[in-house]
Amino acid sequence: MECTPTFLRARRPEHKRQRYDAIRSAAAELALERGVRSVSLGDIATAVGVHKSAILRYFATREEIYLSIGADAWVDWTQAVHAEFADVVETTPAALAEALSRTLADRPLLCDLLAQAPLNLERHVSTGAVRSFKLAVLEAVEGLAALVEKLVPALADRGFEAVAAIACFASSAWQIAHPSESLAALYAAEPALARACVDFVPTVSRFGEVYLTGLIATVS
Amino acid sequence: MECTPTFLRARRPEHKRQRYDAIRSAAAELALERGVRSVSLGDIATAVGVHKSAILRYFATREEIYLSIGADAWVDWTQAVHAEFADVVETTPAALAEALSRTLADRPLLCDLLAQAPLNLERHVSTGAVRSFKLAVLEAVEGLAALVEKLVPALADRGFEAVAAIACFASSAWQIAHPSESLAALYAAEPALARACVDFVPTVSRFGEVYLTGLIATVS
Repeated sequence: MECTPTFLRARRPEHKRQRYDAIRSAAAELALERGVRSVSLGDIATAVGVHKSAILRYFATREEIYLSIGADAWVDWTQAVHAEFADVVETTPAALAEALSRTLADRPLLCDLLAQAPLNLERHVSTGAVRSFKLAVLEAVEGLAALVEKLVPALADRGFEAVAAIACFASSAWQIAHPSESLAALYAAEPALARACVDFVPTVSRFGEVYLTGLIATVS
Repeated sequence: MECTPTFLRARRPEHKRQRYDAIRSAAAELALERGVRSVSLGDIATAVGVHKSAILRYFATREEIYLSIGADAWVDWTQAVHAEFADVVETTPAALAEALSRTLADRPLLCDLLAQAPLNLERHVSTGAVRSFKLAVLEAVEGLAALVEKLVPALADRGFEAVAAIACFASSAWQIAHPSESLAALYAAEPALARACVDFVPTVSRFGEVYLTGLIATVS
């Protein structure tokens, strides 16, 4: 993954943009390989082929890199959901929940970032960086909320609550569904632990269906 | 919080037990002050008043200490819920959800550990340690599930699903509801971010009521 830089320090705007993109691509690729938790700023610098100080001209911390990637990952997910339902007028809670969980599962980096953001990332960045991230996520959730209310009219104005709860549940479920190798081996070996083991798509689909049904039933 | 040890190395069983308890108490107290994420093994050793190597005779990693505390915290929570409903034959989904979220909020260390366990703690411990933790949590969830099914008979056999989903949602909600100081200041200053800010007890109570209602509606 190492790339030889054609310039030592990016000075021209197009070089700056190239370096910015290279940093984010390398960070994303490393996180997909080993999980956001295990990637350091040094790892990212090595992958880009520059010194850590060159990264710091673009991002103050590794957490800022991942919040920036997270904001775009949210937008990408909502666009995929919108595309999936482009020609659909109305759908069922079950079909909607299945589409949301499947499109999330297609985006493992977003899924990892869902939990990493409030636990770790948002705590080691500037106010400006966390503000941009929060505004981007809110806008993405509001866009999805409007779609969800259109697709399942019985939800009335509960679209935001629906999307927020599903994302919140999915963020925990994804971590539980992706245990360490030794824990995965333990799950496989010990039937008594089977109930602690979670399969992401069916679990989140089922959760979403139940939760949307509950929202509809409690619309006053 | 520093305590002067009356023995340098615990050799007698009662001294070993004392040291074991002192390590766990110090770890719990530090985590309540600054969050599980910010406590190192060195911090715990300093608080107990011993060298790190003395801790390693009891726990291989800081993560093992916190999983051990987490297992007991789950048991303590389920006992509190059982006590709360000791004289109650039947209740509503709303009252049950309120009691679960309130008793969780009374246990901030458990709430922090709910998310820290799958994200971080379970990844840095021996197979034996994670196995003990998982079995203890499963037993606690199953005990609560039986109580929930007794209190809300319309849930039929969905008690495990109910407790697991509420704990899963609460684990994310607690982290979001307890942002860093700078993010909390941002929430207070910027009305556009208000929807990203979560108040733990009302959010988890409301979630639980909706989810339990959905479970009941989907019991076939």
